[in-house]
Amino acid sequence: MPRLVMKFGGTSVADLERIRNVARHVKREVDAGYQVAVVVSAMAGKTNELVGWCREASTIHDAREYDAVVASGEQVTSGLLAIVLQGMGLPARSWQGWQIPIETSGAHGAARIEAIDGARIAKHFDERNEVAVIAGFQGVHAPTGRIATLGRGGSDTSAVALAGALGAERCDIYTDVDGVYTTDPRIVAKARRLDRVSYEEMLEMASLGAKVLQVRSVEVAMVHNVPTYVRSSFDDPAAPNPGTLICGEEEIVEQQTVTGIAYSRDEAQITLRRVADKPGVAASIFVPLAEANINVDMIIQVVSRDSSTTDITFTVPAGDYERAKGLLEEHRSVIEYESLQGETDVVKVSAIGVGMRSHAGVAAKAFKALSDKGINIRAITTSEIKFSVLIEEAYTELAVRTLHALYGLDKA
Amino acid sequence: MPRLVMKFGGTSVADLERIRNVARHVKREVDAGYQVAVVVSAMAGKTNELVGWCREASTIHDAREYDAVVASGEQVTSGLLAIVLQGMGLPARSWQGWQIPIETSGAHGAARIEAIDGARIAKHFDERNEVAVIAGFQGVHAPTGRIATLGRGGSDTSAVALAGALGAERCDIYTDVDGVYTTDPRIVAKARRLDRVSYEEMLEMASLGAKVLQVRSVEVAMVHNVPTYVRSSFDDPAAPNPGTLICGEEEIVEQQTVTGIAYSRDEAQITLRRVADKPGVAASIFVPLAEANINVDMIIQVVSRDSSTTDITFTVPAGDYERAKGLLEEHRSVIEYESLQGETDVVKVSAIGVGMRSHAGVAAKAFKALSDKGINIRAITTSEIKFSVLIEEAYTELAVRTLHALYGLDKA
Repeated sequence: MPRLVMKFGGTSVADLERIRNVARHVKREVDAGYQVAVVVSAMAGKTNELVGWCREASTIHDAREYDAVVASGEQVTSGLLAIVLQGMGLPARSWQGWQIPIETSGAHGAARIEAIDGARIAKHFDERNEVAVIAGFQGVHAPTGRIATLGRGGSDTSAVALAGALGAERCDIYTDVDGVYTTDPRIVAKARRLDRVSYEEMLEMASLGAKVLQVRSVEVAMVHNVPTYVRSSFDDPAAPNPGTLICGEEEIVEQQTVTGIAYSRDEAQITLRRVADKPGVAASIFVPLAEANINVDMIIQVVSRDSSTTDITFTVPAGDYERAKGLLEEHRSVIEYESLQGETDVVKVSAIGVGMRSHAGVAAKAFKALSDKGINIRAITTSEIKFSVLIEEAYTELAVRTLHALYGLDKA
Repeated sequence: MPRLVMKFGGTSVADLERIRNVARHVKREVDAGYQVAVVVSAMAGKTNELVGWCREASTIHDAREYDAVVASGEQVTSGLLAIVLQGMGLPARSWQGWQIPIETSGAHGAARIEAIDGARIAKHFDERNEVAVIAGFQGVHAPTGRIATLGRGGSDTSAVALAGALGAERCDIYTDVDGVYTTDPRIVAKARRLDRVSYEEMLEMASLGAKVLQVRSVEVAMVHNVPTYVRSSFDDPAAPNPGTLICGEEEIVEQQTVTGIAYSRDEAQITLRRVADKPGVAASIFVPLAEANINVDMIIQVVSRDSSTTDITFTVPAGDYERAKGLLEEHRSVIEYESLQGETDVVKVSAIGVGMRSHAGVAAKAFKALSDKGINIRAITTSEIKFSVLIEEAYTELAVRTLHALYGLDKA
């Protein structure tokens, strides 16, 4: 029998009524002839409650204990869904990460899945016809036997990795939206739902601000080549929409140049003025940041007229902004800069599309269109299948709409 | 180094402030030179919330899934207390039942501890000086690898069993009262806290209505000869009261005839009138009840004058009353009785004391004293170290006070 992994997030299992709705989605797939594994998140709000208690317990908490506390949220949902499924006449049992086992690295709070043994679940599929209800977001660090969580959004990764381990035909990620859109429909009313998007594009979209899937889960789907649908848990369980399929490029017949426009407000800009222009200065700035695990994204260097100093601008995640400033002030005597300027009201707007590989001048078109609307571009980065511009935050919506129309993404 | 097991119930860990208070109690014992294992319950109210969800999920829920859901409550507390202890500078880690492991029977929801491997915790004691924070009330059913809970109040049993497995010097059960009293102080203002009480007496008291300790935990303490203190978590952690020691009889120098008076309102009385007085009639009544797992306690048979019929009166737990009546009505044609009378406004009042073994007439004294107060005794049971009377519930307080004074238990 073919296998299917279904994943439901926190809002989809927020209370018993919604859990019953999830069960109806599961039943539909069982009736259609699938062996089903369901991955569930904690009930909406529960993870925040548990995280809040950990913080209240101590400002600096042991990540291993944090994991023991926070992982309990998914444990509860897995048991409740199993009970509801049984009540509907479907054999079902809950599985915690350590029972399968899902083995992870020891990076508690942000662990990576290292191995999944699908044999026990497969045995229960074949011998008992059971639905496997799996607590998402967690596994066990085998050398210590301790519970490890994958970090926020990790349930998506649990689901895709399980689909790989179980040889599932596909993985369905149920969320509160009905698929992946060309851009955020709250900003662009004409945004269209994509029928298909390639792994590479989805990876860029997720990295660049689209919140529909966790980046890591898309990486895992790509590596294991798991066809993954994003679809809505709020659809009628009897007649759901298919959602968006994330798949290999070769499965996508009509390729657009640009597939989607993403944006991220989670950016901060730092400019160091009149930095001594000497060898090794870049290292003196970026090595301390890298050692503190701060991801530097866009970097621009403007050499001043007299050539003895230079201005260096770069972006960091907004959450690391204060820490980055502190580190740079600490290293001021080594870096030798005159002043530090920072800004948090910036946004990164990106266009993504595998078609860029074969089309030149895609980004240049955008620079002109944005400039025509009076939008000042502060920094640019490009890669093979995307480009990003850093602009003032107030222009976010205008820029997104401009690019969305420019690349022909508006609905007919 | 000597070892100590400390156990804190739900009200003692109801919020972070109380958990911090628990940590101060733990620190005191660590500073005194003990290797400490702490067993914790779920935060007050949490277990009820989780049980409520299970019931909402399905009226008849799989006990294995119920266990997965409900056990999460203790998991949360164990992690939080470990974090708080670490914040106070004490090395600490949480342990779930399956990590130790604490192996249980497969009777999910009411499992019995079958084996505890203390080796891992002992290694952490010796090599890392860690406080072990253990999720109470649960273990793992080894053949299936599933979480099993011990039933309500099971954390007391977890603690005492761990004390046995770790060879602890003693087990301290912290509750919201400061020890075991001669009777319920809410009824008898002159009730005294006992310094010591024997395992056997405590077992009877717990069985007969005293709610301070779970019956099973006392059995385990007795079997493993674990000196167990009942004491208050609300005492000043810097200068706590010793509480009541539950220990072997040989440790108690001055033995009272009667040590305590217990009462239980959780009783119901059933009388079958004019039962045919023929061989096998008792079996026809009590076998169906036993098969339905209904505990019959006191039994009285009154033969009628004409000797052809008899009246049979007995008690069952109040919670099983309706079920018992239903069963008896179902079997009416086999039993052959004329009518069934039931009453739930009855109470069982008991006097307990190992001194009864060597003193005759202890119970007889009570019958007279109760009769002098106009209290009608409906049934009596006695054993080597206790006797119980069944009376009308309205007389509960009067009966308890009468017996408490009669046996010299009133405070000087």
